Amino acid sequence: MSAMRIDLRRSPEKIRLPLGFSFSAVAAGIKVSGRPDLALAEAAGGATAAALFTKNRVVAAPVQVGRKSLRSTGGRVRAVVVNSGNANCATGHAGVQACEQVCGDTANLFSVPAAEIFPSSTGIIGVRLPAERIRAKLRELMAKRKASQRAVLAFAHAIMTTDTRPKIASARFRASSEGSKEVTVLGIAKGAGMIHPQMATMLLYLFTDVDASARELQPLLRKACDQSLNCMSIDGDTSTNDTVLLLASGASGVRIRAKDVSTRKKLSVALNAVCQSLAEQIVSDGEGVQHVIRLFVEQARSREEALLVARTIAHSMLVKTAWAGADPNWGRILAAVGRCGVPVDPSRVQIFIGKQKVCGNGVASAFDEKQAHRDLAQPVCDVRVLLGRGRHAIRFLTTDLTAEYVRINADYST
Amino acid sequence: MSAMRIDLRRSPEKIRLPLGFSFSAVAAGIKVSGRPDLALAEAAGGATAAALFTKNRVVAAPVQVGRKSLRSTGGRVRAVVVNSGNANCATGHAGVQACEQVCGDTANLFSVPAAEIFPSSTGIIGVRLPAERIRAKLRELMAKRKASQRAVLAFAHAIMTTDTRPKIASARFRASSEGSKEVTVLGIAKGAGMIHPQMATMLLYLFTDVDASARELQPLLRKACDQSLNCMSIDGDTSTNDTVLLLASGASGVRIRAKDVSTRKKLSVALNAVCQSLAEQIVSDGEGVQHVIRLFVEQARSREEALLVARTIAHSMLVKTAWAGADPNWGRILAAVGRCGVPVDPSRVQIFIGKQKVCGNGVASAFDEKQAHRDLAQPVCDVRVLLGRGRHAIRFLTTDLTAEYVRINADYST
Repeated sequence: MSAMRIDLRRSPEKIRLPLGFSFSAVAAGIKVSGRPDLALAEAAGGATAAALFTKNRVVAAPVQVGRKSLRSTGGRVRAVVVNSGNANCATGHAGVQACEQVCGDTANLFSVPAAEIFPSSTGIIGVRLPAERIRAKLRELMAKRKASQRAVLAFAHAIMTTDTRPKIASARFRASSEGSKEVTVLGIAKGAGMIHPQMATMLLYLFTDVDASARELQPLLRKACDQSLNCMSIDGDTSTNDTVLLLASGASGVRIRAKDVSTRKKLSVALNAVCQSLAEQIVSDGEGVQHVIRLFVEQARSREEALLVARTIAHSMLVKTAWAGADPNWGRILAAVGRCGVPVDPSRVQIFIGKQKVCGNGVASAFDEKQAHRDLAQPVCDVRVLLGRGRHAIRFLTTDLTAEYVRINADYST
Repeated sequence: MSAMRIDLRRSPEKIRLPLGFSFSAVAAGIKVSGRPDLALAEAAGGATAAALFTKNRVVAAPVQVGRKSLRSTGGRVRAVVVNSGNANCATGHAGVQACEQVCGDTANLFSVPAAEIFPSSTGIIGVRLPAERIRAKLRELMAKRKASQRAVLAFAHAIMTTDTRPKIASARFRASSEGSKEVTVLGIAKGAGMIHPQMATMLLYLFTDVDASARELQPLLRKACDQSLNCMSIDGDTSTNDTVLLLASGASGVRIRAKDVSTRKKLSVALNAVCQSLAEQIVSDGEGVQHVIRLFVEQARSREEALLVARTIAHSMLVKTAWAGADPNWGRILAAVGRCGVPVDPSRVQIFIGKQKVCGNGVASAFDEKQAHRDLAQPVCDVRVLLGRGRHAIRFLTTDLTAEYVRINADYST
């Protein structure tokens, strides 16, 4: 590998595992389907941790418990326990107690304080978590854990809800110091609906064997998320359970030192690459999604302005349904730009679909409609919006809005 | 009629016409379907006018021309010319010229200045307006005009795009002064998609025979719209052509005087009633709509806060799709409240579906799920959200999001 080369992989058979972590999953009977719904990731020697949580004011019990635990331990995690099929949200004090019981039982198995067990839940809101079913399966879950690709895949499957595919990516690089030892970053995510993370996404776990303190990890995690997970949206609904957790086992023997700018930079690039890959995997597996749109908003006065324009376009039901029909109806994009609150001068706006300019100076450009239709009919299509206001740009991942999305969400709880 | 009795009607055969106006419609070949797409309303003796326009920064040519004309005449209108099938938006200078030509030709027919002709357009954005087709039909349009229910209905039909029904309402009241003469307010609207008016709705025309200046009409119009059209949303997309126009012919002989508080109050109530009826008609005819939701947000600190909560719920794709399935998934409503930006304490939130409390203090209440499902399956269902923060409340009209909405909008232009 060259100096800055990052080896990024996303195929489950090819991903690399960081040293110091093992994984497992079982079916605990929370999902009605009987599919695996309980997952464990353990760092045998413990791990330092950084985390980002949802900005929704309605916060699930595991987010409350996990946030408190990280604070009390100063960012120290032995194991992560995740259930799918139930979000344990809007469940009041009983929900917090149920979560604490699961953490307590797990902690006893590993002989560590309960605060070193990090909990997550995902699924329906407002339904009591059947903690007894989870607690009955913890010993089996612990016994099954392994450091293998198959175990990682089992973990990734068990945290899925309406996802149709597991989402995994790994990146490996050679440290500039420490005798060129290798560092690995592994990411596992779930999410297909209620995806408009404002700080994190539904559930995303990052594991690395680098040796770094919780304080050193946090800014690297924030940067990686800002550029990937915070630049995507499926439906504009920010979840109550969004959690991104980064664990570092230190098992690679590569220490992040203040002076070793090169290794720190590589770690940042590796984290960004893994998060970006997971963001792409989440969006392309979005509920009912037929087309992923890579939306480029350029010539904005600031990044925030570009983000506001991108989000308004990405959340417009009319724009999203036009994309579902591969319809190059750029007027709806322009109308969304016009209502987003940024004082755009419409006569300076340009819009591109694929490689064609469809709108210049706020009016129709001559373009090949059939070609634009063909471009939008691809699994991934680029849409560029130039605002003519400044030099800031953003890349935002989003999706179309299909009848299948409606079908999936019209009968989720019933 | 009693002192405050307002006679509100919405059936086309029963509506009342204000004195001083006539209506007509023809097919000018703008709509591909060949259906009527050009409409005229004329005040033979002229009318005073008040208007509200879209807040979108992308503004259609007729909105630009109409706004300028009202300013130059001080609020004086002889006739309104409306075409459907083409929004004449994002059409640049050529679009403004096309609009001015239509106004100029109409003005010549009535021998008035061009600024006394108020133009409107609705339909697809970004396509050149075939002004020549409109201009060729103006004489026929003028010849056909009549003061009849049938002519009003023809006008209402000709301004429709994806609407499935014309939208008409009238209100009549007896003035407290002027020998108890009667005053009539007639409203005609269109709109089924791109409905999230921030000042007005797609196209809405109000005609009254009261005698009032443009300056006197404007605050009455604003108040009526704030309570009705600005409290509804189908898809959150604010149109580029939104226009509400109120014309007063003065033909009833009832003058709005500063001292006659009672008659002014009745006029305000009549305007509110007509606008509210039209708002309900628009929402219930929303694209693909199966269920209308009357969303009551209560116990807010301010009206603005209540409106922000209502809009966030009403624009949540997950909430709207749950409603499409008559699914009492209140967790999605709570999650939308949590992300809207208002510092709500989730443990004080209560949610009602129909008459049942489904969420109290932020957690599930015991409720009859089948009954909630039945309530949501009705054409109209009430949903109440209590924030536990203050005394302000709002009533917001919105809709579900169905697969049919997606179908309609996935191939609008192609």
